[in-house]
Amino acid sequence: MNEFELIDAILEVLGPSARGGEIGPGDDCAAISLPPHELLISSIDTLIGGVHFPEAAPGEPVGYRSMMVSLSDLAAMGAAPVQMLVAMALEEKDQAWALAVAGGMRDAVQETGGAILGGNLARGPRSITVSVHGSCPADRVLRRSGAAAGEGIYVTGPLGSAAAAVAAQCLSDLDDPRTRRYFRPRARIEAGLALRGVASSCIDVSDGLLQDLAHLGEASGLGAALESGGIPVGEGADLEHALHGGDDYELLFTAASVPAALDAVRIGTVTSAPGILLDGEPVAIKGYQHFL
Amino acid sequence: MNEFELIDAILEVLGPSARGGEIGPGDDCAAISLPPHELLISSIDTLIGGVHFPEAAPGEPVGYRSMMVSLSDLAAMGAAPVQMLVAMALEEKDQAWALAVAGGMRDAVQETGGAILGGNLARGPRSITVSVHGSCPADRVLRRSGAAAGEGIYVTGPLGSAAAAVAAQCLSDLDDPRTRRYFRPRARIEAGLALRGVASSCIDVSDGLLQDLAHLGEASGLGAALESGGIPVGEGADLEHALHGGDDYELLFTAASVPAALDAVRIGTVTSAPGILLDGEPVAIKGYQHFL
Repeated sequence: MNEFELIDAILEVLGPSARGGEIGPGDDCAAISLPPHELLISSIDTLIGGVHFPEAAPGEPVGYRSMMVSLSDLAAMGAAPVQMLVAMALEEKDQAWALAVAGGMRDAVQETGGAILGGNLARGPRSITVSVHGSCPADRVLRRSGAAAGEGIYVTGPLGSAAAAVAAQCLSDLDDPRTRRYFRPRARIEAGLALRGVASSCIDVSDGLLQDLAHLGEASGLGAALESGGIPVGEGADLEHALHGGDDYELLFTAASVPAALDAVRIGTVTSAPGILLDGEPVAIKGYQHFL
Repeated sequence: MNEFELIDAILEVLGPSARGGEIGPGDDCAAISLPPHELLISSIDTLIGGVHFPEAAPGEPVGYRSMMVSLSDLAAMGAAPVQMLVAMALEEKDQAWALAVAGGMRDAVQETGGAILGGNLARGPRSITVSVHGSCPADRVLRRSGAAAGEGIYVTGPLGSAAAAVAAQCLSDLDDPRTRRYFRPRARIEAGLALRGVASSCIDVSDGLLQDLAHLGEASGLGAALESGGIPVGEGADLEHALHGGDDYELLFTAASVPAALDAVRIGTVTSAPGILLDGEPVAIKGYQHFL
């Protein structure tokens, strides 16, 4: 296949998940209209073969995860997905792999909404960059800042399984529940929408609970007191994985109160003193660092 | 520098070119408002070290070119730049190079407008992905389709110098005028804005004049008759470079007439018969192919 044939094959795999824009794939740019009076909310993320996923990993879970990882940033802002752009680098031998990646992305987008309306193919070492774009009314965007002392700290689901998969080096066993959690994170789009007007601050847990909680605390100039017994630990993981491991993509937020309908777990309380206490003791923050 | 320190250093280099959004770098996503009643126009492009730029190329021209190449897609749609997102992969030793890339991007954005409001750093082989976002009233977007037989075919400037630089393997000589043309293309944003309501179809010349003209023709179901004497050949290039070489990023458009104020050169006429004639003879289309 030449480049244009591969693009056509990818569009066939994407099917309805590549449609819905004012102008879709095939022109110099995609074009969409936004809901009136809403902000455009945007983020970009790259996953690189041998760094963010095993070189030998099949395309489908890599594509699914790439898309969900980027969509998770929209969830953290309370945005509804509208448009995604995908830039993929691959070698000529990777064409079947690229179609499998597209299939994984299609599955992710079918779960969250929005459409893949543009992209780019380049020859090079395997990497996938996804640029995501959603919308949200300006006065309802969830920020990292905005927490108040005394508010509760919550997460939307169990943590640590993805990190446990990395630690156990079982990423090639796609039947392991920890590996499934690694490759099939759900961007918490619905939770993010439900948190509009509820959460005072919000972030997604991508680098580790404590590290991402530190980002929230710094943005609000506050601290946190966590109770280890309240932290939901994922299948196959332990508390260390849940505290320091990234890649879970649950939402971490603060709120004065949470509606019962929202399935979130309280793990601690916002404090006026900066820093993070775990069961009353200061705790060292470890987490994912891309460069050291 | 760790990741967060490198991000801070990049933001310092970017300066005002990273400001102006409702929410800028530092949260999970960037947020902007669009002019009311305008479409969001988006594209994404990747440049890879050793493929799209020499591994040893300094960061400043690579950054400038990366940004302009993506912005050129906005120009081709008649869009005004609003927001850019940059995903960069680099090795730890490349930190100074990354800051130079940021400087080149800042210079590009200062020339075209818009702001760099988000990004991502990842460890890996050098690559740069730029996602660009502009706006345009829905009824004034320039498409690849829309040409009519008898209309003129125009380009906004000379072609072939960038291809001549590649052919002459002089990309390491930044003083060569062909190399300057390669590394310092101007996205024709102003021309694109001036072509709203003037051009019936438009594309940017990124893969080669004939190949991109073929895209225009296919989109409109029409052909083209070119006169070789009318094609503006860039400094240090010959007609072959101008016909088949990519990387010039001038706009190629069709129009019934062009205002005198618009600095464009007529190179031929839209024909009802498909295919491209050069001085009355069919011509073979060669151009850049990312995969073969």
